[in-house]
Amino acid sequence: MAEENGNSALLRLRKRTAEVLFSADQADPLTHIVDVGLITLISLNVIAVILESVHMLRVAWLPYFFAFEVFSVAVFSVEYALRVWTAVDNPWRKDYRHPVFGRLRYARTVMAIIDLLAIAPFYLAFVMTLDLRFLRVLRLLRIFKLTRYSPAMTMLFQVVREEMRTMTAALFVLALLLVVASSLAFIVEHGANPANPDAFASIPAAMYWAIITMTTVGYGDVVPVTPMGKMLGALIGVIGLGMVALPAGILASGFNNALHRRREVLRERITDALADGVITEREEGELEGLLAQLNLNAADAKAMTAAIRHARKQAQTTCPHCGKPLDEDPEEEA
Amino acid sequence: MAEENGNSALLRLRKRTAEVLFSADQADPLTHIVDVGLITLISLNVIAVILESVHMLRVAWLPYFFAFEVFSVAVFSVEYALRVWTAVDNPWRKDYRHPVFGRLRYARTVMAIIDLLAIAPFYLAFVMTLDLRFLRVLRLLRIFKLTRYSPAMTMLFQVVREEMRTMTAALFVLALLLVVASSLAFIVEHGANPANPDAFASIPAAMYWAIITMTTVGYGDVVPVTPMGKMLGALIGVIGLGMVALPAGILASGFNNALHRRREVLRERITDALADGVITEREEGELEGLLAQLNLNAADAKAMTAAIRHARKQAQTTCPHCGKPLDEDPEEEA
Amino acid sequence: MAEENGNSALLRLRKRTAEVLFSADQADPLTHIVDVGLITLISLNVIAVILESVHMLRVAWLPYFFAFEVFSVAVFSVEYALRVWTAVDNPWRKDYRHPVFGRLRYARTVMAIIDLLAIAPFYLAFVMTLDLRFLRVLRLLRIFKLTRYSPAMTMLFQVVREEMRTMTAALFVLALLLVVASSLAFIVEHGANPANPDAFASIPAAMYWAIITMTTVGYGDVVPVTPMGKMLGALIGVIGLGMVALPAGILASGFNNALHRRREVLRERITDALADGVITEREEGELEGLLAQLNLNAADAKAMTAAIRHARKQAQTTCPHCGKPLDEDPEEEA
Amino acid sequence: MAEENGNSALLRLRKRTAEVLFSADQADPLTHIVDVGLITLISLNVIAVILESVHMLRVAWLPYFFAFEVFSVAVFSVEYALRVWTAVDNPWRKDYRHPVFGRLRYARTVMAIIDLLAIAPFYLAFVMTLDLRFLRVLRLLRIFKLTRYSPAMTMLFQVVREEMRTMTAALFVLALLLVVASSLAFIVEHGANPANPDAFASIPAAMYWAIITMTTVGYGDVVPVTPMGKMLGALIGVIGLGMVALPAGILASGFNNALHRRREVLRERITDALADGVITEREEGELEGLLAQLNLNAADAKAMTAAIRHARKQAQTTCPHCGKPLDEDPEEEA
Repeated sequence: MAEENGNSALLRLRKRTAEVLFSADQADPLTHIVDVGLITLISLNVIAVILESVHMLRVAWLPYFFAFEVFSVAVFSVEYALRVWTAVDNPWRKDYRHPVFGRLRYARTVMAIIDLLAIAPFYLAFVMTLDLRFLRVLRLLRIFKLTRYSPAMTMLFQVVREEMRTMTAALFVLALLLVVASSLAFIVEHGANPANPDAFASIPAAMYWAIITMTTVGYGDVVPVTPMGKMLGALIGVIGLGMVALPAGILASGFNNALHRRREVLRERITDALADGVITEREEGELEGLLAQLNLNAADAKAMTAAIRHARKQAQTTCPHCGKPLDEDPEEEA
Repeated sequence: MAEENGNSALLRLRKRTAEVLFSADQADPLTHIVDVGLITLISLNVIAVILESVHMLRVAWLPYFFAFEVFSVAVFSVEYALRVWTAVDNPWRKDYRHPVFGRLRYARTVMAIIDLLAIAPFYLAFVMTLDLRFLRVLRLLRIFKLTRYSPAMTMLFQVVREEMRTMTAALFVLALLLVVASSLAFIVEHGANPANPDAFASIPAAMYWAIITMTTVGYGDVVPVTPMGKMLGALIGVIGLGMVALPAGILASGFNNALHRRREVLRERITDALADGVITEREEGELEGLLAQLNLNAADAKAMTAAIRHARKQAQTTCPHCGKPLDEDPEEEA
Repeated sequence: MAEENGNSALLRLRKRTAEVLFSADQADPLTHIVDVGLITLISLNVIAVILESVHMLRVAWLPYFFAFEVFSVAVFSVEYALRVWTAVDNPWRKDYRHPVFGRLRYARTVMAIIDLLAIAPFYLAFVMTLDLRFLRVLRLLRIFKLTRYSPAMTMLFQVVREEMRTMTAALFVLALLLVVASSLAFIVEHGANPANPDAFASIPAAMYWAIITMTTVGYGDVVPVTPMGKMLGALIGVIGLGMVALPAGILASGFNNALHRRREVLRERITDALADGVITEREEGELEGLLAQLNLNAADAKAMTAAIRHARKQAQTTCPHCGKPLDEDPEEEA
Repeated sequence: MAEENGNSALLRLRKRTAEVLFSADQADPLTHIVDVGLITLISLNVIAVILESVHMLRVAWLPYFFAFEVFSVAVFSVEYALRVWTAVDNPWRKDYRHPVFGRLRYARTVMAIIDLLAIAPFYLAFVMTLDLRFLRVLRLLRIFKLTRYSPAMTMLFQVVREEMRTMTAALFVLALLLVVASSLAFIVEHGANPANPDAFASIPAAMYWAIITMTTVGYGDVVPVTPMGKMLGALIGVIGLGMVALPAGILASGFNNALHRRREVLRERITDALADGVITEREEGELEGLLAQLNLNAADAKAMTAAIRHARKQAQTTCPHCGKPLDEDPEEEA
């Protein structure tokens, strides 16, 4: 009996932990505290790794850096263990139910692998000798743990993925231009500048110059010196200017598009909610939830409601002379 | 009696001053003169501070600069005092009515604090010793006094604020890229260039290079020298090119959006104005006011009016039951 | 009689000349030849001035440059004289009719002043001594004579002018940022770099750096050396990146807008042309003229015609059961 | 008989080869293999030419580079010969049917000329002596053979071609600005910098600086040194910033436009498919084919279908005269 009780208490604890770790319900105070705590710890870790790379600071604060690292790895290890343990209770996924395969299935997700990579280097350093500098930078991978908490990023990646086909076409045109420009520059500038013989020594070297020019970065460490080379530089600078416009145009129309589709969904819901002439409190709550989910703002909804209300008023439904509804069957009158 | 008269004269003066200082009614000649005068004085102040920073000019024109400063502070002090005194009569705000708390409430607004900061340093310099150069630059804060006179800026800030959520997502992606790129550059380039050992000495140093490259500024004071570093530079230059597109796309769709919403409002008003078939002179005046308020141009209104007129001509105009025109007033029949 | 005949022949000649010079009717062969000839001569002039600025070429080809200059000024002088003489017959303007005031009115237009400035320096050089280099560059003003022949530029300028108010707001924000950034950089970097003491010597000097950074030009002749200055540079680089988006967003929405308005006009005309079910040859000719005038392409018109045809088919107008038109009055049946 | 059989077998082989080489039907396994093989070989060729330009690699791997070149030319020669031979069976073109003129007509197409240029230099090197470096770079033209396999690029080029008129106007404005800016810089900066006397020695030299500044590349090899020159540089940097927006705005609206037209086509097809209330499996297959052809994504189609369904539900569905549903087939009644 006691064992059964203990077991069911453990199951309740596991269920609660899964809720806290996997749901994003910020209304639950514990979920909110854990989320904020983890976000803070990850951010502090990133800052610590960056500061530790400064020689002076590393020498001065070494013990503190080490202590913070041990503490962080401990917390992240507990988090990882809890996530794997409670994955079977993940409220959003039914395919994690199996005690062994469900957990393995969870462990294979991108977020779980990132969680593992965030702690693995620390333990590996005990087993084998690793380059310390490389190891330290590996810790920066912890920043990817933050992606879990950014729902808006999902929309960004979605737009980029949707426009991938057109973006690939733009990148192909860029690659073509790059090969042509750098080979021409190689022919024209090769060996022309005795002060900087490495500048256009090969096509790959010319490619570095061409990319730095086309992206309008223009360091100035490699510059053309012949009149032909200068004309080429000016030309691909102008083309680069136009090339900036291509992905911008594609992504901008992609964004407009995604927003437009979301707004169509909102418009339909408002039309349905207005079908009986008023928006009840319950309907308003639902609309607000929809707004947050679609990443739209309240001003959109307000303008839309006004427009639909106005359109309904315009779509006169009774004749002002005989008072009968316009869409009523006149045969019935007789 | 005389006192009461004097009091009511003072109240009338306070009311008039409030009108001049707080209303933006450019049709009132005095308001117009005061506005133009203050805008000119603020602009001259900014120019004076900038010129005074040039050593040669400061030495040559010191007395003039000082005299102008004293004059400006005097005017701005009087302006500030008048604004606090007349705040209770501000025609747009009812919550400033209370003689003490109303004025305190006004003094806590952003614009009032800017007005105070614009004169405070001058008086503080009498009380305590301050770094003169820092003090002089503080005077440049006066430029923020100009924001009072730029209604169009409100729209800009509004769009930026509305798109803040998506912008934050774009900035988070940028920060992620920045951390990854600069840590990779740190591993690859650290100690590779003996001529410039500080260039990639730490991750923060590499971050400076990465930002300057990703924003396509490309000073050229820090450049990669290893083949891997050059490839990395080219890569983040290209990614930076794409990153320019993200905020551009977001802001561009935000602008289109805001303009679209404003145009919907305009369309409704024109439809209402056209309900009786013609746009009267009074309605035209109202529409022009709306155009100015919504920051739209007359060409929009013209095209819209034509389109609505055309749509009305196309639409059903008589009741299918009684055959009478739908837009005729049934009261008139009787 | 002969005098009268001569007079009327002269009037006919003046009328014909006005047609050739002022109409843009490329179907008239003489107009076409004169236009192409003048465009070629202006372009050659610009190229000649540019080449003449190269010392080596000027020395080698001096007589040819001079001969070409004399020939060009002769042609442009005749052109100017003819334009003033025939302005009274300008088919587009009724207010040039008066023999004296009409011509003066024409001489005060921007295009006429440009025409005069294009030849004046040559004659002025006889009267007084002028700096030769400056004089030569003045001749480059002739390039503005080309604007007469670019109708598409009108649309560009129109969009820029329409969006001027919003652009001004964006420029004001830029100016504000510029003043704040350069004064901060002045405080932080002033005297910090002994190798380049002029770099941040005054706020105007810091402003040069700030603009070159914010526009992402990034020459690298002035760079921050203190950690604070580098952070400031990175920050305003990122803000500059966003600022690029503001005018881009404004102009892009302006273009979409202008095209949308033009398309509305086209849609109406096509709807009217389709009112009788078919587009006659005459209507097609009119639509093509409209397309050219609105700077739209044929693909737009084709897609629009198809969409309107489809919509008409969808907007069923007779009942498929009783065969009577849906918009007919059912009372009449009885 | 045997001869006839042999002939018809040859004809069948030719037909099959034409299908493999000219159709893009990736469902046919042989077509797929040949396409992937050729794309791989072209890409390897481009990489080989780029690597061969690195002196060290050329010396080390010379025999391998030569062997690969001979192999590639052999494959491309066979491909070219097969394409010319089978052009008469090209399933998409009827005008290639003639055994001699049809093949000549094919040989004059851009793609056929690119195919010839990709192999010609190799054979020419036997006949006459050519600069080896130039010859090697000519081989890079093989990259254009890839354009055959990129259908999305067609859309890019189409948008650029459609917007050509507006782009030309933008480029004309740029050219005008360029001439004005560089001549002003020439006057101001000519001879001002003794350390770099070639920088602004002539207007063409000043033009190089002006383009590098306006495109925001900003190498820093040529920088203004006089206060006037610096102001000019800052000014054209800001104008350049705005100029980036012009092509961006034009191309972005062009893309939106092209997508909008494609979506109109899609909407019509969905409306037609929904005419009977449901989308059958066959109709769904057709719609998917259309999506791929129009380069649209499935999310568009889904949102559109929902919107059309919704609109149909809202619209009138019965005749006001006889009360029968409008979309019911009247034939069935009888």
